Amino acid sequence: MGVTLNGDQPGDVQIKDNKIFGCLVKFFTGLDRVALGESYMDGHWDVKDDNLVAFFEKALTSEYAFRKGPIMLSNFLHSFSLLTFNLQSKSRCKKDIHSHYDLGNDLFKLMLDRSMNYSCGYWYKNVVLSPSANSLLPSGQATNTICETVDEAQMNKMLLIARKLHLQPGMRILDIGCGWGYLAKFLATNFDVHVTGVTISKEQFDYACTTDLESHELEFLRVPGLKPDGSGQFEFKLQDYRDVNDKFDRIVSVGMLEHVGKANYETYFKIIQKNLKDDGLVLIQTIGIAQDYVPQVEPWANKYIFPGGMAPYPDQFVKATFGKFIIEDWHNLGQNYGRTLHAWNENFQKNWPKLADKYDIRFKRMWTYFLLCSEALFNLRKLNNWQVVLSKDGYKGGYISFR
Amino acid sequence: MGVTLNGDQPGDVQIKDNKIFGCLVKFFTGLDRVALGESYMDGHWDVKDDNLVAFFEKALTSEYAFRKGPIMLSNFLHSFSLLTFNLQSKSRCKKDIHSHYDLGNDLFKLMLDRSMNYSCGYWYKNVVLSPSANSLLPSGQATNTICETVDEAQMNKMLLIARKLHLQPGMRILDIGCGWGYLAKFLATNFDVHVTGVTISKEQFDYACTTDLESHELEFLRVPGLKPDGSGQFEFKLQDYRDVNDKFDRIVSVGMLEHVGKANYETYFKIIQKNLKDDGLVLIQTIGIAQDYVPQVEPWANKYIFPGGMAPYPDQFVKATFGKFIIEDWHNLGQNYGRTLHAWNENFQKNWPKLADKYDIRFKRMWTYFLLCSEALFNLRKLNNWQVVLSKDGYKGGYISFR
Repeated sequence: MGVTLNGDQPGDVQIKDNKIFGCLVKFFTGLDRVALGESYMDGHWDVKDDNLVAFFEKALTSEYAFRKGPIMLSNFLHSFSLLTFNLQSKSRCKKDIHSHYDLGNDLFKLMLDRSMNYSCGYWYKNVVLSPSANSLLPSGQATNTICETVDEAQMNKMLLIARKLHLQPGMRILDIGCGWGYLAKFLATNFDVHVTGVTISKEQFDYACTTDLESHELEFLRVPGLKPDGSGQFEFKLQDYRDVNDKFDRIVSVGMLEHVGKANYETYFKIIQKNLKDDGLVLIQTIGIAQDYVPQVEPWANKYIFPGGMAPYPDQFVKATFGKFIIEDWHNLGQNYGRTLHAWNENFQKNWPKLADKYDIRFKRMWTYFLLCSEALFNLRKLNNWQVVLSKDGYKGGYISFR
Repeated sequence: MGVTLNGDQPGDVQIKDNKIFGCLVKFFTGLDRVALGESYMDGHWDVKDDNLVAFFEKALTSEYAFRKGPIMLSNFLHSFSLLTFNLQSKSRCKKDIHSHYDLGNDLFKLMLDRSMNYSCGYWYKNVVLSPSANSLLPSGQATNTICETVDEAQMNKMLLIARKLHLQPGMRILDIGCGWGYLAKFLATNFDVHVTGVTISKEQFDYACTTDLESHELEFLRVPGLKPDGSGQFEFKLQDYRDVNDKFDRIVSVGMLEHVGKANYETYFKIIQKNLKDDGLVLIQTIGIAQDYVPQVEPWANKYIFPGGMAPYPDQFVKATFGKFIIEDWHNLGQNYGRTLHAWNENFQKNWPKLADKYDIRFKRMWTYFLLCSEALFNLRKLNNWQVVLSKDGYKGGYISFR
């Protein structure tokens, strides 16, 4: 089940340049967690059929692949069995300082779904969950079907969030880290609520402000079967969430905690607490680390993809919320992120010709590496994705969630 | 909204003996957390209409009521406004060492539901939760109805557990802390699984062993609409869970963690990890502390009701599971415990004449105090009740829960 150099099985590495040998050694001995990705970016190796997911699913199965610092060679071999391996041929990998990518909206428009949700989608739909006997299946399994496209999965995800928030017409919602604004628009369009989205990204803010509620462009966000009275509103602010000083019925924050940094978890939840009415609800969606041996910051990704980004460990999450909030519901939807990333990569590869003028081939390889390594990490359940619902002192009447 | 001495509002204290004054001062200044309950047991005070829940709901609203050690008098008055209050009349309360109650099965048979679930029931039934548009209500609320009796709520709870465990016929289930055995019998009867229940209580073990699967007595456990093939089995072992050394498809443990003690949380989850197949699921139901100022051990309850008992803080729970398990689903059903305790107290009061020969009036007052103080603590959301589903490395295909 190991990875074979120049082999013909899924995930087998195809050597283009011998510099890869040194990078592999450094990666799996923990000496250098950046060089392997860089050597891929530089074209020193490929994977048969471009199946990087299969490569990572084999290479990252063992916890040894996540160890920091030097480890025993036996551990290395345990984690990554190489049929052809030349210790003498190792060489220094390039460590050029890569000028940080300047990602435009066009990349995300061509990669993400139509509603530009840059976070885990929710692929299970029509889930029927009830302990009542009437709907019991012999297997005890939920009945559900799987969304066919990432567009559908993200609409489904936004609907799940709306249901979990127990929205009532007229409520005021704060969306912290609102991205390109579609969740705010979705909630306002379908649930007659007033949503304030805050972001510190000028590019996202400008994009979010280009459409208003009457725009024909937002028709696709309408959920069939709902009959909103059209009183919903949304607004966007180019503002640090720490400067928000208001009171909201609901606060939602999707894919934001990953950018907050562990030093600021306390602050993040204090600000949310301060801006939430006493009988309010909070929904946080975030990547979470699933295994204690997985590091919070992966150097390659930190250098090239998300500088300063880190997913929380579950105990960090709980520690930062306890005393401020009660956990009403914790939903692990990590399995959905593999599918989401898979779809994003399909879109990215398909639309590459439209991007090739702006981005070079090294960027393409970097982005592919990022998407497919991430897909493998979620498929292997090294990373999770959580939706956690919080209340201040317990939701009146008891909180019932949705799936 | 305060409690008035000798007043006529719900929760008002009726003074029978001036010794109560000293106990009240000691309780709310944190000097003595045992004496107030003892003075109630001794008949020094009553509550109008025996509405102890209303008393506790007023007295325990503020976090000051939970402070350990001496606090400022102003805090005390903030938490407990007394119209009549004589600081001079305080006196020492009795601290007799009370010979620990020897509780027999008859008490629990007359207090609990028919299936003798000595843990939080689940009162929401026919919950329909789906993010699909078809079943969306305008309010975004779940549709559900409330069970009418605690018998129904406990059957409903056992069914919820069964659904969450994704049972398949032939699976082997371990029930750690199986009580009087009805959950094991329920699962075996309805889902064609083989359940092993372990307990260290001789009385519970003997009771559990008195019926077999063919017994007519178990008819009431059958869930209408299910068509089991009758291959289910159950067995009970008088055994410390730490001595179990086997492999199960599912492990369930309800109302057990409260007795484990924080020093043993790690061990508890290690034993569960060791006895679970790699693709297995675990369901833990436990009381959990909801606010950081609520102490893990309440001295009065520790002395009279649950010696050695303590509910976990959420961060303790997560810390003890992380690295061994992934949290798949965390369901806070705390609101259900108030209703459950309310029903237990109704049964206890109603059936007191059948118990009066065996227990004295001080026991009756002690038990009433315990049940109604607990009800208030859950109503106030100072305590929660959790059902948490765990897997080793992520449930294959993604875990979907039930509500």
